[in-house]
Amino acid sequence: MARSIQIGVVGYGTVGHGVVHGLLDRKKLIQNRTGLDVELRWVCDRGFAKNKKSFKGKTQSTHDVQEILQDDQVDIVVELVGGVDAAKSIVLDALKAGKHVVTANKALMATAGKELFKQAKKSGVELYFEAAVGGGIPIIKGLREGLVDNYFNAIVGILNGTSNYILTQMRQQGWAFQDALKEAQSLGYAEKDPTLDVGGHDAAHKLALLAWLGYGLESPPKNIHTEGIEHIEPVDIENAAEMGYFIKHLAIAKRVAGGLEVRVHPALVHKHHLMANVEGVFNAVYVNGDRVGDQLFYGKGAGEKPTASAVIADIVDIAKKMQHASNDADAVVSAAGVSGLSLCKMGDVVSRYYLRFTVTDKPGVLAKITGILGDNEISIASVRQQERNQKQSVAVIIVTHEAKESDIKKSLTQVDRSAFIDKKTIVIRIEDSTEDLRES
Amino acid sequence: MARSIQIGVVGYGTVGHGVVHGLLDRKKLIQNRTGLDVELRWVCDRGFAKNKKSFKGKTQSTHDVQEILQDDQVDIVVELVGGVDAAKSIVLDALKAGKHVVTANKALMATAGKELFKQAKKSGVELYFEAAVGGGIPIIKGLREGLVDNYFNAIVGILNGTSNYILTQMRQQGWAFQDALKEAQSLGYAEKDPTLDVGGHDAAHKLALLAWLGYGLESPPKNIHTEGIEHIEPVDIENAAEMGYFIKHLAIAKRVAGGLEVRVHPALVHKHHLMANVEGVFNAVYVNGDRVGDQLFYGKGAGEKPTASAVIADIVDIAKKMQHASNDADAVVSAAGVSGLSLCKMGDVVSRYYLRFTVTDKPGVLAKITGILGDNEISIASVRQQERNQKQSVAVIIVTHEAKESDIKKSLTQVDRSAFIDKKTIVIRIEDSTEDLRES
Repeated sequence: MARSIQIGVVGYGTVGHGVVHGLLDRKKLIQNRTGLDVELRWVCDRGFAKNKKSFKGKTQSTHDVQEILQDDQVDIVVELVGGVDAAKSIVLDALKAGKHVVTANKALMATAGKELFKQAKKSGVELYFEAAVGGGIPIIKGLREGLVDNYFNAIVGILNGTSNYILTQMRQQGWAFQDALKEAQSLGYAEKDPTLDVGGHDAAHKLALLAWLGYGLESPPKNIHTEGIEHIEPVDIENAAEMGYFIKHLAIAKRVAGGLEVRVHPALVHKHHLMANVEGVFNAVYVNGDRVGDQLFYGKGAGEKPTASAVIADIVDIAKKMQHASNDADAVVSAAGVSGLSLCKMGDVVSRYYLRFTVTDKPGVLAKITGILGDNEISIASVRQQERNQKQSVAVIIVTHEAKESDIKKSLTQVDRSAFIDKKTIVIRIEDSTEDLRES
Repeated sequence: MARSIQIGVVGYGTVGHGVVHGLLDRKKLIQNRTGLDVELRWVCDRGFAKNKKSFKGKTQSTHDVQEILQDDQVDIVVELVGGVDAAKSIVLDALKAGKHVVTANKALMATAGKELFKQAKKSGVELYFEAAVGGGIPIIKGLREGLVDNYFNAIVGILNGTSNYILTQMRQQGWAFQDALKEAQSLGYAEKDPTLDVGGHDAAHKLALLAWLGYGLESPPKNIHTEGIEHIEPVDIENAAEMGYFIKHLAIAKRVAGGLEVRVHPALVHKHHLMANVEGVFNAVYVNGDRVGDQLFYGKGAGEKPTASAVIADIVDIAKKMQHASNDADAVVSAAGVSGLSLCKMGDVVSRYYLRFTVTDKPGVLAKITGILGDNEISIASVRQQERNQKQSVAVIIVTHEAKESDIKKSLTQVDRSAFIDKKTIVIRIEDSTEDLRES
């Protein structure tokens, strides 16, 4: 195996914590999946000044970023201090020292990105920023790599989780803006001073990056028409709903005959559009590419682990480039790092079931069916029966509580053998017993 | 600039056509975005035997794949012949000849992937297959790269556009399966023999690949519990709807205590879940990662250009690896290949508008407002007014047809100056005048 890749993380706030522990806890997983040995060498935070932190393994701590920048062993510096000025000098110094840089800092990238990229180019190193837009959603990668042959007609984002959460609560609970904001603050979804989020500025920073990547057009946030959601009132949400719309806070970069529209503001979105159904703190980016058509990328736009996940993906991408000898085929053959996983038997699947029995409608039929189900430990949630019809078959719909597939199968073998059954029973699983497909 | 990367495309059907013309037409765009010179050297198709094809520039045609495999200049072979046996021997031969391979062939990868990866590893070359799952959606890249530090709790896909189209039509039009299938066939969304699609086998092939990538578990399609949609009747769709569900054809790989469930079947999905709102021929993959939480990737799962877009992204990724000297910072600075694009003035934006006027309710107020709007070329689509109330302000909601932002602004400056206006007028744009946010 090639040599290890040495990482220095600067900033140990929420995202820093997620990155540090992600790198330490998932070291083996990343190695299994990519063949790369990614080693966390340094964690730097000003708060470590008096109280030196200790980490797993060989990881050292410091309060002085220069220790990292001057360490020849460090390959990649991860900037997570936030803000613009201090962060900019750290990133510039790291790039000048020939280190690759990963940052999650949208304000920095939106305002100084061009200058930083020039330095990166000059130093022959990489500058990655997946976590700066859409948290854990791989949208930068999607635009730059996945859709590399597309011209973009439109890129439309729900890029601020705080605003989306507030608008969702206003609609679902009928709350006023201030009440929804207070709740968001009490849940930690909004800052004490929420201006950056609810005023649309955070979304404008992110949109500036998307417009730059997608269209090559620099649009500094100050040139982007930016409106927040503070002026939206319940009456607007109600009126929109009556017209069939939800109000969403959108960040839009759209190609038109005259150039590129780049704007951030609340908007009415048809309630059946996927973007209308992006609720709560979730983010989404809708892309229309001239070759792929419409695409949507959806996920958590903030939070320790989602954001850290994007930072770590950038680290791994740079590490892969550095170790160009490694090849992906190897990684796939050596599999996904989950060992000892076996394919479940279908009979062990647990689900709620929709069952449609086609029966000759005679007295006692329902009792017989439910009796057989009960004998097989299947508990019934609801029964619907078509109107009585002495001549033709009727449908009896039974929805079960959670049941085991093998019990369902056994029951239906018995039921379908009965004289009153006119057609094989239809079985459709209900996929909401699992977290991932529950109503969002 | 580094040397050009030479491509040989084998198979000139629908996807082959898209890849060939994408590579030729977007050569300059790809160069601007990545610094790479990707050159289409060969196009091979059996149909060229008698009728030699001519292509733009230096591209040659042949009916004999050996010409490509034996050409030392070829770096990447793109397999687009489909089927398993012939494709397998082409891919194996290419890998043995030391060529990187890109394929869109899910049946091949799901049944012979392991063997092919072993050969790729032995030869030290790459084998990419983004287009094999979800057409133009960068889901393979998302799972392998974007979410590299995640263990997956669940991967749930709508992976077959034909089945999804049929189920969507059955629900929206009330059609029987056979009628929806006939329409899908007449529109070219379903094959003459639709078994592979509506029987769930195509989805099972794709799910096998997702389960392999996400969990490292080989699950040959024949071991995957697979049900199609042929037995779904309108009565099921109606009953589901009454219960608040849509019926979707899902491909599910889910981690449970006992191992991994891998199964393909129709299922009831709550109508407010994003997956329920994936309609028509669109595909989507819902992923729950233990660090990023829920994510959704949505887009066109088939078709010439979307599928070709994924193939071309793979080609570019391999080319980038080969040219490890190129760096991404350069690509971002040299921008997105769209030259001469300028930021539009906000005043030129055209949209429909939702306007909420807060007025003292006196006779003639509505006439004054609509008069000012009319004078500024703004045409009104609808008006709603709260019940008359002599003492307090009332809200008047006006929705406009498409209007220019500057005209709206001018009108509102005039209106808001009027004595009967009690509060600044609220303006919210309606984002459905553009294709991308119209009701899907």
